[in-house]
Amino acid sequence: MSEIEVRLAALGLTLPPPFTVPSGLSLPFELIQVYGTRVLISGHGPQGADGLMAAPFGKVGAELSVSEGYQAARLVALSMLASLNRTIGNLDRVDRWHRVFGMVNSAPGFTQQPSVINGFSDLILELYGPERGAHTRSAVGMAELPFNIPVEIEGELSLRP
Amino acid sequence: MSEIEVRLAALGLTLPPPFTVPSGLSLPFELIQVYGTRVLISGHGPQGADGLMAAPFGKVGAELSVSEGYQAARLVALSMLASLNRTIGNLDRVDRWHRVFGMVNSAPGFTQQPSVINGFSDLILELYGPERGAHTRSAVGMAELPFNIPVEIEGELSLRP
Amino acid sequence: MSEIEVRLAALGLTLPPPFTVPSGLSLPFELIQVYGTRVLISGHGPQGADGLMAAPFGKVGAELSVSEGYQAARLVALSMLASLNRTIGNLDRVDRWHRVFGMVNSAPGFTQQPSVINGFSDLILELYGPERGAHTRSAVGMAELPFNIPVEIEGELSLRP
Repeated sequence: MSEIEVRLAALGLTLPPPFTVPSGLSLPFELIQVYGTRVLISGHGPQGADGLMAAPFGKVGAELSVSEGYQAARLVALSMLASLNRTIGNLDRVDRWHRVFGMVNSAPGFTQQPSVINGFSDLILELYGPERGAHTRSAVGMAELPFNIPVEIEGELSLRP
Repeated sequence: MSEIEVRLAALGLTLPPPFTVPSGLSLPFELIQVYGTRVLISGHGPQGADGLMAAPFGKVGAELSVSEGYQAARLVALSMLASLNRTIGNLDRVDRWHRVFGMVNSAPGFTQQPSVINGFSDLILELYGPERGAHTRSAVGMAELPFNIPVEIEGELSLRP
Repeated sequence: MSEIEVRLAALGLTLPPPFTVPSGLSLPFELIQVYGTRVLISGHGPQGADGLMAAPFGKVGAELSVSEGYQAARLVALSMLASLNRTIGNLDRVDRWHRVFGMVNSAPGFTQQPSVINGFSDLILELYGPERGAHTRSAVGMAELPFNIPVEIEGELSLRP
């Protein structure tokens, strides 16, 4: 069991199973790409323990509160870590988180995107610590997101050489 | 003639000429940047065989159907490949597609961005195959795009060492 | 004094002090990350000489004109250069600008995002010249941005080896 999985278990958190693609939909891309020590990460949404996209759906500032948006961003982190774990085999192989691009499905006039994406950043920092977990970030407001998910995040990191 | 150009010809597809910048507009950036083996690709829109931005314009889910959005994303791929070809000289030099960031000009309530950006991904995979063509991706909904184009895509790839 | 600082002074421009985070807000990320020679840059907004976010706030095409948006994008460049200078110590260490992702808080129907982000690109090119300053770019319209800032830009560059 990796050190990161030990920390996840200590927090009472579980990584979700592979995403169940809605029937009739084609998603012709890789969730994770490893190229040398670079790891590129596709946009992930909040995912439940059943493998499906997790409720609530809608826009933060309307259907979701900031606090619900924060929880959704935390679920995005778990979905991304699950994809990573399936591809790289051991979450301890991460050397450094680099880039986090946080997209919030935003109701008109909603401008607290950073407080939402903190749900992602706080968990990554708690798991990886202030050196490996530190990352650059943008947290911005989208007009719409696929399936009406409230948060989508893409990113990049490096593996240990 | 490169292998990729042979495949394009077999599909009946032609790469467009350089983009005709609208008069009075300054676009002070590179469409493609090569840095070592890394290739960074600016946001591209749908372009016609005449070098101009291609109709239809507007938001997917309002002025454009999903199927018209898919075709627009396919035209974005051709525009990007044309820019690449002019810069790197031979499209076979691509070792691996890495990152595709697909932005869909989205009408309120339109949430099928992945089905639109598939027009790009499907063509890249058809041309480059499942290993070199595989890429990470986000497909998200923008409030507005320049010139009211329906789709804009930026990306990154690597050249063969 | 670095060559870039000499050029800034010749233009009558000053780099702002560190950003004053609004009270009660947590921003758990790095403004700049250096990883080998790669430099990743978080989303920056317009910042004033007092360290606060700079007015005007709102959407370009409504509260701001294109020309005010251009000035805001220029202030983003100064904020980013100030962050860079604090992290890398000397702005002359930049070997090449790579990627600029320009996000414009856009009023409905506003489609002149490139003319806004030119305020950033023009200054970077003026300071770094056409070779080191050249960059790839997207300039797109967001539904909302944090704190209702009109422009946010993230990017990437490389340091001299």
